[in-house]
Order: sequence, then C-alpha cells, then structure tokens
Amino acid sequence: MTPYYDIDICHFTADMRHVELLDQTLLPTEERYIRVSNAEEMAESISKLQVRGAPLIGIAAAMGLAIDLRQSAPQNIDDFWTCFTHARKILADSRPTAVNLVWALSRIEQNLRASKCSSVAEMIEALFAEANLIKAEDVESCGKIGTYGKDLIKDGMGVLTHCNAGHLATGRYGTALSPIYFAHKEGKQFHVYADETRPLLQGARLTAFELQRSGIDVMLLCDNMAASLMAQGKIQLVLVGCDRVAANGDTANKIGTLSVALAAHHYGIPFYVCGPMSTFDRHCLTGEDIIIEQRAPSEVTEMWYASRMAPQGCKVYNPAFDVTPHNLITGYITEKGIRYGNDKTK
Amino acid sequence: MTPYYDIDICHFTADMRHVELLDQTLLPTEERYIRVSNAEEMAESISKLQVRGAPLIGIAAAMGLAIDLRQSAPQNIDDFWTCFTHARKILADSRPTAVNLVWALSRIEQNLRASKCSSVAEMIEALFAEANLIKAEDVESCGKIGTYGKDLIKDGMGVLTHCNAGHLATGRYGTALSPIYFAHKEGKQFHVYADETRPLLQGARLTAFELQRSGIDVMLLCDNMAASLMAQGKIQLVLVGCDRVAANGDTANKIGTLSVALAAHHYGIPFYVCGPMSTFDRHCLTGEDIIIEQRAPSEVTEMWYASRMAPQGCKVYNPAFDVTPHNLITGYITEKGIRYGNDKTK
Repeated sequence: MTPYYDIDICHFTADMRHVELLDQTLLPTEERYIRVSNAEEMAESISKLQVRGAPLIGIAAAMGLAIDLRQSAPQNIDDFWTCFTHARKILADSRPTAVNLVWALSRIEQNLRASKCSSVAEMIEALFAEANLIKAEDVESCGKIGTYGKDLIKDGMGVLTHCNAGHLATGRYGTALSPIYFAHKEGKQFHVYADETRPLLQGARLTAFELQRSGIDVMLLCDNMAASLMAQGKIQLVLVGCDRVAANGDTANKIGTLSVALAAHHYGIPFYVCGPMSTFDRHCLTGEDIIIEQRAPSEVTEMWYASRMAPQGCKVYNPAFDVTPHNLITGYITEKGIRYGNDKTK
Repeated sequence: MTPYYDIDICHFTADMRHVELLDQTLLPTEERYIRVSNAEEMAESISKLQVRGAPLIGIAAAMGLAIDLRQSAPQNIDDFWTCFTHARKILADSRPTAVNLVWALSRIEQNLRASKCSSVAEMIEALFAEANLIKAEDVESCGKIGTYGKDLIKDGMGVLTHCNAGHLATGRYGTALSPIYFAHKEGKQFHVYADETRPLLQGARLTAFELQRSGIDVMLLCDNMAASLMAQGKIQLVLVGCDRVAANGDTANKIGTLSVALAAHHYGIPFYVCGPMSTFDRHCLTGEDIIIEQRAPSEVTEMWYASRMAPQGCKVYNPAFDVTPHNLITGYITEKGIRYGNDKTK
C-alpha cells in the first residue's frame, strides 16, 4: 500500500503562476485539487480550511505570496514593496491562531530585505525560492519529528490522536502522525485511535483517511469517547500537534486537546505535543497571551448536515482552539529532539 | 413563554388502544407524533431512539405492554401470561443499559401477580393503571428532583449539562434539567451550557430545543469545548442524568459524561448526578458490572450527514454510555433529597 505521504498536496504549477492545493473540505469523499492564483484566493482557501494545519498554512501563505507578486507584475522596486505589503496583510489576516503563518511571512520579508536582489525579477525569483525552502525545511523537520518520536511507540500500544496533525497538515508526514508513520515503516504493530474532532471533523475526514490509505490500523471515535478508552486501559500514548506554543510551554491546539490532556493526566498516560520549532512563539509568554479564533455558529449547527441540528436562533460557543497548560504536557517533540515538560505524573 | 414541560410527549390515545409518542429523531426541525400499537412497535421506537431517556423508556415500555396485551386479546389467563411473557421479553431486549426499562417491567409483573384480578379484562385494566401510575410517579419524582436541586443554582451561575436528561427524557421536567426549570420558575438568572452530545446530538437537538422553548438562556457547544469553558471559569455547576447507578455510586450515563466529570474534578466544579431512585440498581455492585450498549458505526460516520464523514470501511468505536466512578461525583439528586458522594475535592 502506497503511503499517503508520498502525495504532494500543495505545490506550484509547472508554469509557476499558480498553486495547486488538495481541497481538504471535500475529503474523504472526493480528492479534488484547486488552483489558487493570488494572495486573496489563498487567504480565502486558508480561512475556508481548504488548506489547513499550522505548518501547511505557513507553506501555503509563502507560496501564495510568491504567485501574487508574479501576477501583480510590479513595475519597479517601490511598486514591489507596495504589492508585497498588501498581499502580506491579506494572508496574515486569514487566520489568527497558528503562529507559522506570521512566522513564514516575516521570515520571507526579512530575508528579502537582507538579500542582494537588484531587480523585481530577482526579488520574485527569491520569493519562489524561499517558499520552496520553507516547504523543504518543513518536510525535513517533520521527518525528524517522526524519527525522534517513533521510539515512543511500542508493539501492541494504543496511540490516541486528536484533529489532524498529519501529512495533510504539513509539507510531508505530519507532526503528531509522523512518529506513527515512522514506527509503521519499521514494521511495528500498534493501534491508532482518532478523535473525530468536532465541529469540522478533521479526525474523521482527514486523519482516518490518510492513515487508512497508508495501511495503518485506525479506529475512529467521537471526541467524548476518548476518556472511556483510557479508563479501559486501551491508550498508552497521546500524540497531538500544536498551533502555537508559548514560552512557558502552554500549547494552543485544536479545540478538545485540553479535554484529552486532562483525561490523559488523570489516567497517567504520556501526552506529547509534536511540532516544528517554528510553532514555538518566544514573544508569547503564557497561554493567556494566545489569541483564540472564534468561528461561525453554523459550523456546529448546520455544516455537513442534511438539515440543521439545533433550534433556530440557538447561541453557540465555537472556539477553534483551546490552551493546554504546560503542566499537563509530558514532552514536546520537535526537529531538535524531545524536550520533556512539567507534567510530573508520569 | 409556555414551558415545554407542559406538553405531554408520551400518552395513551383516547381509545386506549395506542400510545402516542413524539418522534424525537425528527427534532428540532419537526414535531411529529407517531402511534405505536404493540410491544414490537414500541421496542422498535425505543431502539431507534424515537423515544429515549432512561425514565421515559420505563414509562414507554409499561405503556407498550398494556396496549400489546389489549391488542393480543388473550382468551384466558394462561393465554394472558404467554402473551405477557412474550411482549415483556421484546421490550426488555430493546436497550440493555438503562435499568428503568427492566425495573418497570419487573414491577408490573410483580404487582399483577400479587393482585386479585380474576379475569383477563381486569388484568388488562391493571396494566393500564400501572403504566399510568409509573408515569405519575415519575412526574412526581422529577418534580422533587427539581425542588431539591434548584437551590444549588445561584444567580449568575453557568450550569453545564450533557446529553438530554430533560422533559424529553422523562414523564415531565426531566432529571438534570428539572432543577434548571424550577430555578427558572423562581426567577433566577443563570446560563445553561449544553454539550451537543455526539453522535446522536441529543444536546443540540433536544436540550437546546426544550430549554429555548421554555425561555431559558442556553448556549450550545461541542462536547470537546466544555473543558475550555471550565478553564475560563464560566461553569460553576454540572448536572447530568443517569441510566444506571451501581450500589457503590458508579454511574452509567451517556457517553462523554466521564470526560465532563474528569474536567469538573480537575477544576473543582461540583458535579451532580440526577435521577429517580428507580435508576439505582442494588444488584449491580460497581460500574464494572454495568453492560454498556455498543451501537452502529453509521451513527458516527453517516447518520444526520449529507454525505459520509469518514472513509469507507473505517473501524468505529461507538459505545452509547460510559461509567463515571463514584469518586468523581459530588452528589446524587433523587426524589428523596441530595445524597453526597465521595468526591473530596469540593
């Protein structure tokens, strides 16, 4: 069975004028690619979650910036910077919580300003090169996360994950799913339990999909069932991704992560956060400084459904993320290795 | 605004040959009543969750038994008992976890055998009387649960509930929702947070519906968001129902209750289980003795949705209930008052 991570889901087209993206809102029933031609279209794809996952958002934004500047065809260097600033803002505003987005855009600007490019054409070339480099580095980081993390997975284990921090969220392999892919490559036999992850069902639609397509044993559950599996002794390890890690280790990740962490803590199950160093935000001291994106009520009451599932006019609480405090986290798996956290129960 | 608990959702028809039930699978978009004519139809309505909620299942089964025996028209007392045993078994097998179902059926048989009925006609009359009595007693119990529980609710509080343990789950008022209705009657101002309760969305479809229809401030959330509200200090009280309480206080309730209890325990929030004494099963020593109903994978992957939400062939874990251990429970609210539990954190 061909591992799903061998498929490139976000890349420039051959003419280098568009980005081709797998539309993740259509999974698992349809695998359709869309073409994005400028920063506005890319920002729309990001905010609609056609492309999602903190590292992949960074890559997509970098690629969106490059094609936008090519399409804008600025006449001189001043004009270039005007277009750049405009496109950068559109992309940066598309989603507020994942740090990788702003990190990628800042890095591109910084490197470009420090470069010796003397023409608009050179600057545009540099944008493409930088976007490709960000993607290549992410692939490398994810590979290392897999290499460091795989040893935590032993034969016979049950490994729980929440949301999708897989190939579909990164340049390749994923963050939380990378150790799973690398352990599977080594022939280890274990079970993955995937939380469906309401309201957008990334666990059901994406994680179950990419693991199943890679020949990995995966069982789907509703988010509220994870504690019951833990109580029965079926889970020995939890691996999740992250959207922003504060300086003290508090971690913003998909809504529901906190609930998994509390249950894992109660049952003494190791809980690891996986992500590239670009997700660590030194400027953010604690979880309280992380801005949490609030999304539309219709995601809970109507989206995906055949008819509405709650009474008309019902108020809805729908944050996209929650913050898991550092004292519930066993360790952080990055491309630099495993850093152990403050959870003293394990 | 007329409180929704003034509507009778499960009753005999005027000719006393059918039971009329509100089909809860159609809520909140449609309020349609169905007619049930015998035990088989009632068992089907119970297993399809057209009628659900531990106390209401007991009432519905008692009513189903009465109309079945009338429809069967047994010729003599031996014939009556043959029909009775057959109908009883069909009803008892419809759902395994809620104790009220078997409790109601056993009580009916016991009382009938002890009665002085000397004809089939008298025995059938006794079945109707007993079913009406079980319902009337449940209405009274629920009213008392509301009366005892309402004092736990203070102005300005946030009260979280899971699944639907409301008017739609009982003869009237509900168990967990009864204190909410009684506090509201007294003019208290507070906020109710309703977990949507995957996979069957009883919180979104039923709890949000009946509270909104009664003019109570309610906000809907996905199950995985409750811990985030608790971490923000928005919840001061948790009220849930129960399907079976073991002798040691371990409580089977809708899947996801354990997760709420773990989070409430962590944040020091009082967690109360509400139910009539008929839900307490002395023969069941601990939670380990409670049989947990496993339901169809399609409830998670396809039901309600416009298209399937997980890849074809995906394995699914779908238990209908979980067990919350007694040491996570602050107290039990029954028609006899509040009995405090073993959770020492509060």
